[in-house]
Parts: sequence; structure tokens; C-alpha cells
Amino acid sequence: MRVSRLRELKPTILKIGGSVITDKDKELEVRMQTINRLAEEIREASVQNLIIVHGGGSFGHPLAQRYAITEGFKEQTQKAGFSETHHVMTVLNGLFMDALIWRNIPAVSITPSSCIITKNGRIQRFEDAPLKMLLKMGFFPVLYGDAVLDSKLGFTILSGDQLVSMLATKLNAERIVIGVDVDGLYDDDPRVKKTAKMFKHLTLEELKRLESKLGKPTTCDVTGGMFGKIVELLPAIEQGIPVTIVNATKPNYIYKVIKGKKVKGTIIEKE
Amino acid sequence: MRVSRLRELKPTILKIGGSVITDKDKELEVRMQTINRLAEEIREASVQNLIIVHGGGSFGHPLAQRYAITEGFKEQTQKAGFSETHHVMTVLNGLFMDALIWRNIPAVSITPSSCIITKNGRIQRFEDAPLKMLLKMGFFPVLYGDAVLDSKLGFTILSGDQLVSMLATKLNAERIVIGVDVDGLYDDDPRVKKTAKMFKHLTLEELKRLESKLGKPTTCDVTGGMFGKIVELLPAIEQGIPVTIVNATKPNYIYKVIKGKKVKGTIIEKE
Repeated sequence: MRVSRLRELKPTILKIGGSVITDKDKELEVRMQTINRLAEEIREASVQNLIIVHGGGSFGHPLAQRYAITEGFKEQTQKAGFSETHHVMTVLNGLFMDALIWRNIPAVSITPSSCIITKNGRIQRFEDAPLKMLLKMGFFPVLYGDAVLDSKLGFTILSGDQLVSMLATKLNAERIVIGVDVDGLYDDDPRVKKTAKMFKHLTLEELKRLESKLGKPTTCDVTGGMFGKIVELLPAIEQGIPVTIVNATKPNYIYKVIKGKKVKGTIIEKE
Repeated sequence: MRVSRLRELKPTILKIGGSVITDKDKELEVRMQTINRLAEEIREASVQNLIIVHGGGSFGHPLAQRYAITEGFKEQTQKAGFSETHHVMTVLNGLFMDALIWRNIPAVSITPSSCIITKNGRIQRFEDAPLKMLLKMGFFPVLYGDAVLDSKLGFTILSGDQLVSMLATKLNAERIVIGVDVDGLYDDDPRVKKTAKMFKHLTLEELKRLESKLGKPTTCDVTGGMFGKIVELLPAIEQGIPVTIVNATKPNYIYKVIKGKKVKGTIIEKE
């Protein structure tokens, strides 16, 4: 009984990259078909204790960059930019929620900027009571990268990746699944270099040795590319939470991985 | 200097009723023209320290009623209803935010269910740090009636009116403006009885004597009609915060009242 209750409280954290659900080459371009397919896969997997976090892609990033939101509040003209960046993220989240809720998935969005304050870009306060209650009641909380208030900078951008890492360590997650637009973690950027080699399995130690070689982003991403994503996850991996990186643009990969089935991808474990 | 800083911190709280921005007779029917006009009036008024709260109207109320969300979590089938009710409220809020942000109004939405937990329907916890930071930086926080988590009931509905009252008392607001679809507070329901008489001015004592006579709702409204709205505001009035009730469906009424100009309506003051 105790074991099953403990397991119940250990959620899977599923990150869906902004490059998966939006077209990063065009501003405010949602990939609605992909969102619907992913929602269908999540419904079919019929798992419990799932937290979903999605990125901003071509909704949040171009605006955040145009108004230098990450750098903080320096001039009045940025205020409209902060409002707009947060607003477009709620729009993208709304489209994602639509797809989940139409399929009767008990998903409830949590707005990061309404319950999180950062300090120099790092999460400082997080009112987690709604999230914990949602999980306990069997809902799937859905969060996203957002423009948030920052006690030092005024405001900044909170990446979905930092959110994933914080939630995983705080809730001692069962595992983290990172859905991206490539097959896994490579020793170079696979979208640029054809000779890039994918890692099937990495330990924390191997990962740290590879840090300098990881792929760099090819398009606009204020929160960094694959390198930044993995670095964010180090505290979770250190805590013993395994990370699986898979290609979420390929049908059934997310379905299989959240069902616990084997798919092509990169697994990163502490040891 | 001190006086002006104190005044800066005393916000005006503007409530826009769900019956103003939606057609309560048709489910999910937004009055986009009215929202755009109100956004224009708010922009033209060019005031500071404004908090906006809007109701759910034909977005939140019919769903909340269908799934008995107010009564709390009693069976699994309500879960989809909770997800849906919260979701449609974020959609209505998104439409409202669109109208504000297109006009360069520095408005930022705060999702009540992400930062508030109620207990038996009354606000128990509220993470107010984002709201206070937004105000200090000159943003207009926008909140709304929402489906929220409740530490006793599981979940329930938090009315925009309870939010207004809590925010007003907590922040010691300058005043409260309630925009509805009638001209003010009547001794009977003006939409039903032609003989209903409107009050121009009421003291707290007069109001309490009138409690039993106030109008009842004519259409679906799970949070109660005008009576429920006014009762919610009693603690704020008691604290010395004046309440002005005006018809927000009439052009320029909201503009005038937030500018401090005289318009037809009901003023309720402590003495």
C-alpha cells in the first residue's frame, strides 16, 4: 500500500519542445496537426501522474527577443513587449489545452507567471499548492515557458526546461521525457552536420565530459539550444531521475515512451 | 512625496460583469464589439493603478452549472467539467486580453486558479507577489472568475465578485467600479419590473436595511445575481472603500467613471 501510494506521487514529466508544436521559422505559426496527434497519443497512452510542460517556439521566442525580455526591465517600451510575450504564450497554451480537453483528457493549465517569481532568471518562489492538488486529484497539470516577474530584473523569460528541472527535483519525478524535433542527443548539431553521431545512453559523468561538444541552436531560441536544455536537467539527473530524449515529431514516439516502451532516443541516467 | 507614493499604491478595481462582455442567453457567445469598446475606453482614460476583474458570463457559468463545479468534487465525471470550465474562462480572458494588448495597454493576466486556493468556496491562500510586482511596475493586472481548487471541496467556482472584494480589502483600494448591464442598483429587478427604482446613493446602513429587497438573477449565474455581488462587497465598503455601480453596456460610462467624472449609477459608501 505504502509503495503504491509513493509511486502514485512520483509523476512523469513530459516536455514538448516549442520546435515540435510550432514552426520556428515563421512567427506565431502553430503546428495544430502535431498538437492534435500528440494529444491523441497522450490520451491513448492512458497513463497517470503526468505533468506536461511545453515550450514557446515561434510564439514566445521572437517577441521575447525583439523586446529583450530575458535581459530584464530597462525601459518603458519593453512593457508592451512583456504583456505581448506573456499573452502569445497563453494563446499557444490555449491551443494545446483545446486539443487535450476535446479528447476528455483531465488537463488543467497552470500559468507560470501567476505563481512563480524568479531572481536573476532562476526560480525563487513557486506557489505549488494548486499543482500538488491537481496531481493528487488525478488531473494533468500543463505548464509552459513564460514571461515572468523577476525580483532583481523586473521581468525575464522562464524556460520550459528550467520548469521541468525544478518540477522534477521538487516532486522527485519518476522520470523526465523530453520531446524534441531530432532523434536524440548528438555529438554535434544533426540538422547541420551529417556526420553527427547520436548517443543511445549516457551517464552523468559521460555527459559532463561532453558538455563542450553539444549542439548549438540553429534558429532563434532565447533559452538556448540542446546544450542549455541538458544543462538545466543536470540537477534532476544528479538526483537519480532518468531523462529520455525522443523525437516528438515522429508519430507514436511519445505514446511509446510514456507507456514505458523502447523507442529510438537518448537515455541519460546518473550511473 | 510620501502622499503621492501612498496614492500610487491605492488601485482602482474595475469589475466588468460577464453579462456585459458575453450574451448570457447563448453559450460561449462573446460580445467582441463591447470588449473592444471597453478596451478603447480604458486606453483613452489613460489612468494608472488599475486592476481589472471580469466575470464568466456565458463562458464559465453554463459549464460550471452543468457539471455542478460550485458544489465541489463528488464524482469522476466532474473532472472533465472542471478542466473545461477553467479552459473556457482562459479563452474568454484571452479575447479580453487581445483587445487590451492590441491597444498597447500594459495588461497582464493573472490566472486565479494558478495562485488561489479556496476553502469551502472562500479564498484561503493567495500568492499575491506577482500581482503586487505588476502593479508596482505600472502594469494592469487582469483577473477573472475561475474554476479553482478548494482544500475542502476539491474544487469550486471563485466568483469575480469575491476576487474584487478580496483585492480591494487586501490592497486598500481607492475605489471599486462595478460595470453591469443595468444602470445601477434597484429596489427590484429592473429587467423584470418596470416600477423598479434605482438608488443614486446608499450608505452601508441603508444597504443593509435593503438586503432582503435586492434584485434576483433572471438568467443562469452560479455566483448569484446583484444581491450576491453586493453582499460580497460589504467588507470593502465597511473598510471605507466606495463602490460605484454603472452600466458598462452604455458607451463612455466606464471611461467617465474611471476618469472620476459623474455618470448615472449607484454610489455606495460607508457613511
